[in-house]
Amino acid sequence: MRALADSAQAPFSLPDEVLQALRRRFGARCSTALAQRELHGRDESPFDVAPPDAVVFAESNEEVAFVLQLAQQHRVPVIPYGTGTSLEGHLLAVQGGISLDLSRMKSILQLHSEDLTVTVQAGVTRQQLNQEIRHSGLFFPIDPGADASLGGMAATRASGTNAVRYGTMRENVLGLTVLTASGEQIRTGSRARKSSAGYDLTRLFVGSEGTLGVITELTLRLYPLPEAVSAAICFFPSIDAAVQTTIAIIQMGIPIARCELLDAHAVRAVNAHDHLGLRESPMLLMEFHGSAASVAEQAQSVQALAAEQGGEAFEWASTPEARTRLWTARHHAYLSALQTRPGCRCVTTDTCVPISRLAESINESVREVEATDLPYFIVGHVGDGNFHMGYLIDPQQPAERELAERLSAQMVARALRLGGTCTGEHGIGLHKQGFLLDEAGPGAVALMRSIKAALDPAQIMNPGKIFAS
Amino acid sequence: MRALADSAQAPFSLPDEVLQALRRRFGARCSTALAQRELHGRDESPFDVAPPDAVVFAESNEEVAFVLQLAQQHRVPVIPYGTGTSLEGHLLAVQGGISLDLSRMKSILQLHSEDLTVTVQAGVTRQQLNQEIRHSGLFFPIDPGADASLGGMAATRASGTNAVRYGTMRENVLGLTVLTASGEQIRTGSRARKSSAGYDLTRLFVGSEGTLGVITELTLRLYPLPEAVSAAICFFPSIDAAVQTTIAIIQMGIPIARCELLDAHAVRAVNAHDHLGLRESPMLLMEFHGSAASVAEQAQSVQALAAEQGGEAFEWASTPEARTRLWTARHHAYLSALQTRPGCRCVTTDTCVPISRLAESINESVREVEATDLPYFIVGHVGDGNFHMGYLIDPQQPAERELAERLSAQMVARALRLGGTCTGEHGIGLHKQGFLLDEAGPGAVALMRSIKAALDPAQIMNPGKIFAS
Repeated sequence: MRALADSAQAPFSLPDEVLQALRRRFGARCSTALAQRELHGRDESPFDVAPPDAVVFAESNEEVAFVLQLAQQHRVPVIPYGTGTSLEGHLLAVQGGISLDLSRMKSILQLHSEDLTVTVQAGVTRQQLNQEIRHSGLFFPIDPGADASLGGMAATRASGTNAVRYGTMRENVLGLTVLTASGEQIRTGSRARKSSAGYDLTRLFVGSEGTLGVITELTLRLYPLPEAVSAAICFFPSIDAAVQTTIAIIQMGIPIARCELLDAHAVRAVNAHDHLGLRESPMLLMEFHGSAASVAEQAQSVQALAAEQGGEAFEWASTPEARTRLWTARHHAYLSALQTRPGCRCVTTDTCVPISRLAESINESVREVEATDLPYFIVGHVGDGNFHMGYLIDPQQPAERELAERLSAQMVARALRLGGTCTGEHGIGLHKQGFLLDEAGPGAVALMRSIKAALDPAQIMNPGKIFAS
Repeated sequence: MRALADSAQAPFSLPDEVLQALRRRFGARCSTALAQRELHGRDESPFDVAPPDAVVFAESNEEVAFVLQLAQQHRVPVIPYGTGTSLEGHLLAVQGGISLDLSRMKSILQLHSEDLTVTVQAGVTRQQLNQEIRHSGLFFPIDPGADASLGGMAATRASGTNAVRYGTMRENVLGLTVLTASGEQIRTGSRARKSSAGYDLTRLFVGSEGTLGVITELTLRLYPLPEAVSAAICFFPSIDAAVQTTIAIIQMGIPIARCELLDAHAVRAVNAHDHLGLRESPMLLMEFHGSAASVAEQAQSVQALAAEQGGEAFEWASTPEARTRLWTARHHAYLSALQTRPGCRCVTTDTCVPISRLAESINESVREVEATDLPYFIVGHVGDGNFHMGYLIDPQQPAERELAERLSAQMVARALRLGGTCTGEHGIGLHKQGFLLDEAGPGAVALMRSIKAALDPAQIMNPGKIFAS
């Protein structure tokens, strides 16, 4: 992390002309206060803060265009900002510039419940969306854990717990309003469910991490709230047994809606934090959506598969309250784990492999970390072959950080050998640029760079991310 | 179509050096015979043939790279060719050049049944794939009607009958091997189900219609063959009643696998062709996949919804043979319709709208064509909001072609007004370049062009398609 710390110290500053223009247009919504800048120069990663030179709170497409045109003219970096919950250093202003905060663009613009679509501004968070559309009987399923903004979720191609059934942001964004690097407003996609009209600009901007333009509006697919929902937890004698159960569920094509793994460390942490009294062994947390009959049938099939692997102590929850209690374990895992080691920070990994290689991938990673003294925990969207290992490091101990990075590099190398990816859902940011090169190869990365150069010739959009500048 | 006919006449020819080099490398697999060139200079559209200067049958990535490098050096157009079944003029050599036929690259490279993935060469057709993986208990669901090559299906972002449940090529391609315009081999995507590793090159090449590079290999998602499959036809008093039933099915979230509309003209045509004895009124052809209980439940719900709209004479088919009989109606609709007017050609439309606007979209289109004497038929993947109207024109009567084009333009304009797209699954090709501009707007099209310029600076990849040169 030394290079990053260095660049965070580098003396950036906005041209005075730019700052004056921002102040004239935005007044108090343009801030250079250190506290604001530091808040906007970090994310949930363990990287040191790299504050932008100014923070601007935009409230309309026109304001976003204004900032981009000004930045373009003066070659100033612009970093789109949602809720600050990304995990790979995406928001750090490693070359200074303007943090363009979109959190005030939080209107739901058009709900078309009869078409199962909604158009929202980029600052709307997923919880706000589901709250506001509750009356329609519809919901938006993508749940990355954090109450992230939908613009940010699109920018990092987020997924999370429901992806095994409903897909990721890739599958659930129908269209976008984007302000290009030059400040031109374009629209990608229509409200139709499918289209073959030209290049797939929607999917190009989904996952582009703010490096190609600013997403300001999104048209999303919604789903009818299932007639019946049932959640269950089940405990296993080993991680391997839990993973083998998952593999069988996926291979049989059971349309499970959520299939989450917590290892014993994660369960212990949430027990301590929330007094849940769960058995401290590897656990699958599952959810089934559908008609009452279909949910019952899925649950029965899964229980049989789990039993073959020694899964037991099934606990079922069909009421919303009972489900919330079970899901508390999953949703609090990260924060609870952080509290098991006061003052620690978490280095989180994010590999995703073909489902048949998941056991090998997790077992080897466990073996490697167990050979050290580093505290860790595992949570995983295992139905997708995606899991996170969190290494709890003391930020004052460079050796611990190096160890975590070495273990993480070994995990990624293994995932790539097994046909997987270096990141299932967190993105590249600052942290995985080398891994991207390993995974995609120099030819594909060169092609990505040529797209970046074509769409952002002045290199103002979140520079230094995805590719080293 | 005059402009096209003109360009088809234009005197193109390959530099002698290029032809010699191709002959040295490919021998008899390089052809300049008029019959081959004409075969490769047309598709299923009513456009006049525009033959390439030479046809090359490639058998490996290295051979594709050789052709591209040669073409790059001499600024010669290259048009990737699969089975010739596209519908918007994609394959016409409007600027001459080389038709690069990939139909001999038809190996299944790696079947990972335990991961529900397969990697194939681009020339493998969908029927071949399903035949060869039958033993695994898995299938690839995308069915555009024609037995197209999977490379071609990716290039046009094809979908078809199963898309309402399983998605389109967009959702079902995990990764690609692509030879870029300069002949460099890259790999997009891994075998993981999801990834956030950099720009989504996979989705950029899916739907790029051969204008950015040559797809030579595809890694695809497979699905377990459903435990139970049941098909049904149901007849309605009006197209509107059939469409209203469809809308209700989708809005209720019933996971129907196929939901196809045939109007009375289409039913009449297949009756004449296949002696099916079906009632000649608007018909929905549906299919349900799942466990036996789930299929029964879906079928029951749908039957109730259909009854509310006057749907009757339900006919069920659960055995493969009985299903094949029902699906004959759908699969033969296009060819049967062509035979109702000897010597005719078909101008096919392909709009897709948000599901709630489908009735309005179809009803208005019917009203407009009924006000003329033009024979027509309607088939539709109505579960997606996608339908095709086929106008059966006499190619000797320019007035009929003009009328069909005018009706088609009115349909597209209406689809765009209703929030839809000018093409759900056929692509832009030569035919819809103006509509693309109407739909996406000049800013988004300029952005697409800048990507084209970045990836194919010499403009050799299928020039004149998607964008007018």
